Amino acid sequence: MKIKLGEKILGRNEQFALQNRRLLRGRGILCLNVISSPGSGKTTLLARTVEDLKGKLRCGVIEGDIKTDLDAVRIRAAGAPAVQIQTEGACHLSAQQVSRALSELPLESLDVVFIENVGNLVCPSAFDLGEDARAVLLSIPEGDDKPAKYPATFAGASVVLINKIDLLEYIPFDIDRALKDLRSVNPDASAFQVSVVRGDGMQTWYDWLFARRDSVADLKI
Amino acid sequence: MKIKLGEKILGRNEQFALQNRRLLRGRGILCLNVISSPGSGKTTLLARTVEDLKGKLRCGVIEGDIKTDLDAVRIRAAGAPAVQIQTEGACHLSAQQVSRALSELPLESLDVVFIENVGNLVCPSAFDLGEDARAVLLSIPEGDDKPAKYPATFAGASVVLINKIDLLEYIPFDIDRALKDLRSVNPDASAFQVSVVRGDGMQTWYDWLFARRDSVADLKI
Repeated sequence: MKIKLGEKILGRNEQFALQNRRLLRGRGILCLNVISSPGSGKTTLLARTVEDLKGKLRCGVIEGDIKTDLDAVRIRAAGAPAVQIQTEGACHLSAQQVSRALSELPLESLDVVFIENVGNLVCPSAFDLGEDARAVLLSIPEGDDKPAKYPATFAGASVVLINKIDLLEYIPFDIDRALKDLRSVNPDASAFQVSVVRGDGMQTWYDWLFARRDSVADLKI
Repeated sequence: MKIKLGEKILGRNEQFALQNRRLLRGRGILCLNVISSPGSGKTTLLARTVEDLKGKLRCGVIEGDIKTDLDAVRIRAAGAPAVQIQTEGACHLSAQQVSRALSELPLESLDVVFIENVGNLVCPSAFDLGEDARAVLLSIPEGDDKPAKYPATFAGASVVLINKIDLLEYIPFDIDRALKDLRSVNPDASAFQVSVVRGDGMQTWYDWLFARRDSVADLKI
């Protein structure tokens, strides 16, 4: 007797992912799964996006962390509804956890739901949460070799934000090398150089966000 | 019929971990499992340690990455034998992979074996590799909230290196907060503030390393 446990678990996750995707598509809501190493700037990106787009794009956020609700508190302070998931040890969010969190968000008044995954450049890439697209962050201090060393995560991204470019004057980082390695695993992703803290490049990110949101809203059932 | 698959897998890993520990203890070799987020400075720390301690401490390195042998190449350039493990997607090293890599290192001429785990602040903490102790790196750009958000990894550390303190003048990071959160999950770990690139604090790390090595050498069977 063979038990294909891996398949079974993924099957369950995929069922919830499908359900989440249907729920959000049905309402014309864009859903982004935001993935990066710890400390690349995911929460700072989302808090600034919420603030800058106030009155233009209604954002809701699901925060994934192993422990603490620090990130949800930051997002609420920026002015958006946020639900914190504490995974209590698990290294990624599951579609089932996201399903529960979605029921706590005021979907009727949202254009976009951001899901900030657990800080981990590896495991989250294997779990579909029902998102429309994935945004992967890579920050300058992490080093330009990361697209080559973590190919699966970068291959799954629709948009890659190279963040903390304000630190380029203090830290060696070869942008051309990072982009070349990104292109070798993912020729199609949009790639933007940003400094969330200083504001560089944020408009390119917002333009991408509005265009993507429009394409999802067009699909509304 | 109940199949406890999780237990079985861990059991197998623990068997190899025990075997690795016996092999290294029998030779009086200190073995450190080095864990951190991607880009915290693990390889740079090990390359500098190898260079600075040349003639004083004979180091060998096992490099774990999902893809590429970039890190083993860097360690060999620094002057130490290095074996690269490419996990091809897996988010952590296993004791079995380490067992195979140990057979490729010249153990008879080593004092210390460093195992650089896959860049991941979560999953590696659950897998014993047969090490004597764990070194966890946290770098300034990752943020001072990481010990609170990733408690299991910090709880398992014997030594914590807060790296890239040369960036403290450009990036906000509350060292007292990080240390307080570290102490709340791990009152016993040694904690050092270092800049591997600039050299700050490296002597405290080397002193720790020699003391730990002496205590392991005393246990030699």
